[in-house]
Amino acid sequence: MNNKLASYFTERDHELWLTEDEREDLKVSYRIKEILFEGQSEFQHIMVLDSYSFGRMLVLDGIVQTTSMDGYIYNEMISHVPLCIHPNPKRVLIIGGGDCGAAMEVCKYSAVERIDMVEIDKIVVEVCKKHLPEVSGQLSDPRVQFIFDDGVIFAQTKENEYDIVIVDSSDPIGPAKNLFEKSFYQSLYKALKKDGLMVCQSQSPIFHVEVMKQTFQRISDLFDETKLYTAVVPTYPGGLWSFTIGSKGNINLNPAKVSKKKTQYVNQQIIERCFFLPQFMLENVYRK
Amino acid sequence: MNNKLASYFTERDHELWLTEDEREDLKVSYRIKEILFEGQSEFQHIMVLDSYSFGRMLVLDGIVQTTSMDGYIYNEMISHVPLCIHPNPKRVLIIGGGDCGAAMEVCKYSAVERIDMVEIDKIVVEVCKKHLPEVSGQLSDPRVQFIFDDGVIFAQTKENEYDIVIVDSSDPIGPAKNLFEKSFYQSLYKALKKDGLMVCQSQSPIFHVEVMKQTFQRISDLFDETKLYTAVVPTYPGGLWSFTIGSKGNINLNPAKVSKKKTQYVNQQIIERCFFLPQFMLENVYRK
Repeated sequence: MNNKLASYFTERDHELWLTEDEREDLKVSYRIKEILFEGQSEFQHIMVLDSYSFGRMLVLDGIVQTTSMDGYIYNEMISHVPLCIHPNPKRVLIIGGGDCGAAMEVCKYSAVERIDMVEIDKIVVEVCKKHLPEVSGQLSDPRVQFIFDDGVIFAQTKENEYDIVIVDSSDPIGPAKNLFEKSFYQSLYKALKKDGLMVCQSQSPIFHVEVMKQTFQRISDLFDETKLYTAVVPTYPGGLWSFTIGSKGNINLNPAKVSKKKTQYVNQQIIERCFFLPQFMLENVYRK
Repeated sequence: MNNKLASYFTERDHELWLTEDEREDLKVSYRIKEILFEGQSEFQHIMVLDSYSFGRMLVLDGIVQTTSMDGYIYNEMISHVPLCIHPNPKRVLIIGGGDCGAAMEVCKYSAVERIDMVEIDKIVVEVCKKHLPEVSGQLSDPRVQFIFDDGVIFAQTKENEYDIVIVDSSDPIGPAKNLFEKSFYQSLYKALKKDGLMVCQSQSPIFHVEVMKQTFQRISDLFDETKLYTAVVPTYPGGLWSFTIGSKGNINLNPAKVSKKKTQYVNQQIIERCFFLPQFMLENVYRK
């Protein structure tokens, strides 16, 4: 085991454990069956591990990003909700989302004509297509254009082009840091058509309240209507996760659009209920 | 440090860590500031720890039960939901619930005349009143009768006495095992008045699917109407948690009853939305 690997893993009684080192005061350790892929890209350290609790997991810089057991929850929630708001989404931009799961969900909507998927790290896409079929669906829909580039720079060049932008980023450290900046949201505003909308993951309402509030504030400063919604993501710290939608027009939800789509987590009621927020979130963010 | 304590804790770089040993394949470790209480009762090993991530935590047999940071979510969800269903709840029985948080929530309803709280372990109640005021509210409402007894045996002696029974148990191992048995639910059915209803926590829809399905099945075999609902409990594995309601009459929800109650998690919309289940739960349990 090389030095990098040795910093992520411990061995006890001939068992291999990955310990996430994300936070100083809470550590989650996963018992690992097998290391399926390990490598260092230009941007980050990448692994696909087979775990006993969550099946296969994509691990970037030692942090679990998605798993074959629960990845569908996050990917369905970041995709179907905006697709149930926009009345006629033809052009969709996904920034990040290297596991291909969000793109796979967007492909379930026949109105969509083209999906530009801008992921900075080509190796993440290749590895997920090969080793995480439950998440990536081994995505090969001809409507998806893969663009391996920095999402921040890509968005700056676009104007009035997209109906929906999905920002499927990792945490605001490492390569995803710039995807939480105000100037980035300004680029997205410009890249969207006049009735377009954007969605991003805005971290945990419990552990990252300041990031969530700041994201909401930055987006609502630009867009006509901004709304938070939540989902449970079992492998993320605290379980509860937030998403923020910014829309150039009014946010009118049409949950019926999800019916007859093949999904594991979302359905009409879940799409409706995700905007109903716990009291502490209302008080923290909306100050109602 | 005695041998028992040594089995729960590890010391690294002069820092104290509690590692939960609940599941073989996934371990959560909490950095601990201070051990506020430690002792062995007749029934279990009891600790109150001050942690960096979740504040004060009640730990039974090495497993985190509730914390000052998120305990209100579970306690509000197991209490306000049944109280928003029963039209006129006067007599409430709580089985378990030694942290006193569920009783504190029930006390917010002025219609309630008496709460019998049957907890097997007196020391848990004493310790939570003293060391976990954020959860227990240092409960001293005169409507609450503390009964330190085995909830299974207590329930067997009751007939046609309660409007609501809340089963606030720990996991189905150790002292709470019998609170998941069919014969126990039969006792509760008998203990309830003709329009009464019961609620219990029924474990994680992700990690304990079989316990959840079995609980639902056992309760629906007895009661006229049975429904599942969910909440996010950040300190429980997987975040998503299930609760099961069994009612002698129809389940008619009146979320407006929660308005003007001082709460941190529940509000009218949360009470409504908690019955909207993810697709995989519908398919697993209701088979719709």
